[in-house]
Amino acid sequence: MVNMGGGPEVPSKKEKELVLAVLPWPKEQCQAGIDALQKDFDHLEVQHYYSHFENGKITVDDIPRDLPAKASYIATLFWLPKDADEIPKTKLIQFFSAGTNHVAKHPIYTDSKIPLCSANGVHGPQIAEWVVMMDLVHSHNYTKLYDLQKERTWNQRAGMNVSDRVGKRVGILGYGSIGRQVARVAKALGQDVIAYTASPRKTPESKKDDGYIVPNTGDPDGSIPSAWYSGTSKEDLHNFLKQEIDLLVVGVPLTKYTTHLLSTDEFELLHKSNPRGTYIANIARGQIIDQKALITALETKQIRGAALDVTDPEPLPKDDPLWEAPNVLITPHVSGSSDAYAERAFQVLAENIRRERNGAKLVNEVNRDRGY
Amino acid sequence: MVNMGGGPEVPSKKEKELVLAVLPWPKEQCQAGIDALQKDFDHLEVQHYYSHFENGKITVDDIPRDLPAKASYIATLFWLPKDADEIPKTKLIQFFSAGTNHVAKHPIYTDSKIPLCSANGVHGPQIAEWVVMMDLVHSHNYTKLYDLQKERTWNQRAGMNVSDRVGKRVGILGYGSIGRQVARVAKALGQDVIAYTASPRKTPESKKDDGYIVPNTGDPDGSIPSAWYSGTSKEDLHNFLKQEIDLLVVGVPLTKYTTHLLSTDEFELLHKSNPRGTYIANIARGQIIDQKALITALETKQIRGAALDVTDPEPLPKDDPLWEAPNVLITPHVSGSSDAYAERAFQVLAENIRRERNGAKLVNEVNRDRGY
Repeated sequence: MVNMGGGPEVPSKKEKELVLAVLPWPKEQCQAGIDALQKDFDHLEVQHYYSHFENGKITVDDIPRDLPAKASYIATLFWLPKDADEIPKTKLIQFFSAGTNHVAKHPIYTDSKIPLCSANGVHGPQIAEWVVMMDLVHSHNYTKLYDLQKERTWNQRAGMNVSDRVGKRVGILGYGSIGRQVARVAKALGQDVIAYTASPRKTPESKKDDGYIVPNTGDPDGSIPSAWYSGTSKEDLHNFLKQEIDLLVVGVPLTKYTTHLLSTDEFELLHKSNPRGTYIANIARGQIIDQKALITALETKQIRGAALDVTDPEPLPKDDPLWEAPNVLITPHVSGSSDAYAERAFQVLAENIRRERNGAKLVNEVNRDRGY
Repeated sequence: MVNMGGGPEVPSKKEKELVLAVLPWPKEQCQAGIDALQKDFDHLEVQHYYSHFENGKITVDDIPRDLPAKASYIATLFWLPKDADEIPKTKLIQFFSAGTNHVAKHPIYTDSKIPLCSANGVHGPQIAEWVVMMDLVHSHNYTKLYDLQKERTWNQRAGMNVSDRVGKRVGILGYGSIGRQVARVAKALGQDVIAYTASPRKTPESKKDDGYIVPNTGDPDGSIPSAWYSGTSKEDLHNFLKQEIDLLVVGVPLTKYTTHLLSTDEFELLHKSNPRGTYIANIARGQIIDQKALITALETKQIRGAALDVTDPEPLPKDDPLWEAPNVLITPHVSGSSDAYAERAFQVLAENIRRERNGAKLVNEVNRDRGY
């Protein structure tokens, strides 16, 4: 506020530290998170600016030119100042996204040492819910029952073809925050869980989830899987896929190695190991599955079905045969949506401010060399 | 088999005890259960007869006239011999249904002391899965996404309206085998669980589930609920309904007291307590909900929606307004279906044979006075 009068300036109270939040949600949607943060930390003041990303272009509410220079903390999804010189006081930048790939070429990423933290972990619950929901929708034949409701038809026979989940085996390819929450729920459903990770996790310490964990969810100690497979060779992967898996959850990042990780050979292996048929849920990236091979495996009933929140490409073109492949359920890359998203990401920020003040190791800090 | 020859009869090995199984599933579907039973108990031989119930009439494969008299154990869903005189050797009758109301006027029920056991508990997992599935389908707006798939339309906006389950509260009206398994899964999803039962459960002993429990499911100790409400008055019920419930699971038996247990007053209370809106799942009996009042509560958004596996009446007539009431999902009383049903019921029988031989208290034994 500009001082309009000529009187003496009011001596400022102990000045608050600024959290500059530039986020793609209107302030109302962030209010709960902002309030919680300001309640946790007396000395913080949050200023919110609305940023919007559409058709490859970022538009941001007008941020006063001198404001970034005052920010002790920045909360953002994709917005960043031009370079680190603009934010000399910033102690950490909390991204509200699971990764930071999208800014990996930005000068602040490449040329500064400001700690960057991701919001990895905040997607776990809703995506795990999506996986569980889709597996149940399939195994309880629910889409058929839904179609019948729309016809106002009471047909019990259509609801008889149910295979409940007790004693089934869930194989989780990539045991991160999403996989761990799937595991937690799968176990409660009476299922057996096996995990696969690139690097071996033999020790209790290595099995732990050291990222952000939404309270009361996940598998913090990594104690749920009855067996834990690992490796980066085809042989390692195949050994995992031979374990009579009923639900295969695809939760690995897309890399050169994981592109078309699941293709003809893998579907054959799954089928041989489990003639009842494996159901596949992909919540990672479409390219991890060889989509042509998938359609064939579905048509020949080598696999039981697939729930896909990601496809190759996206959006999936109207004339793509995947839309109507047998036993496929497709959603448009939305499994990460949640009305709790912003509030939960603010909790990661709060945790990191707490740790930064205590000189503790930050949670979800990006290793710039490793890239995540 | 008839002895056709004239030679000496082969001396019989130590004669096996007979389990007479008269069940509405063809033998193939019972084979896993039969095999497991005969493997567990060397001295048992199972003979299977197919019974069929349609349009109020029971038809049964021809059971040899003298066979029931030889049966040590009977496994049945609705078939019974004329009276207890026909089964002098029978040590227990294992019903494959959750209750035995349907035979409560039969002479074996009224005039004999042969222990009758229900298969209460075997429905828990699949019905709990139905509840969890429907709550997720609703909260993830999945039916909309399914409709869009059929139009081959990729519309992300339709998938944004998701409220995940973390931190939500599940209120379970009737904490039996189904409710306990809902509780187990709800807890894994990060939800809070509160329970309601007619009789108070203050002691650890009284909180236990003393019926059959499918291994690795349920809440055997009753330790999951963060609060346990009880009573049989309207006031008691209302006190429970005021607890800001997000998902209300209706799992009480139909009695005079529970008929229209949920009506206008109750929907109002739910709304006042939780303006976000309660979602109701009914897997008990349609008559427990005042269906007209339900439709009004849905239309006025007093409640958020309802998933109904049971309606009043059943089948629901084609012109019933319930079919298209806002945010209603209806399935035709099928939530108990599971391809594991028969096998699981055979496990209850196995447990009871084990207990009977050891002189232990049977599981799920029907108290003829109490009626269940």
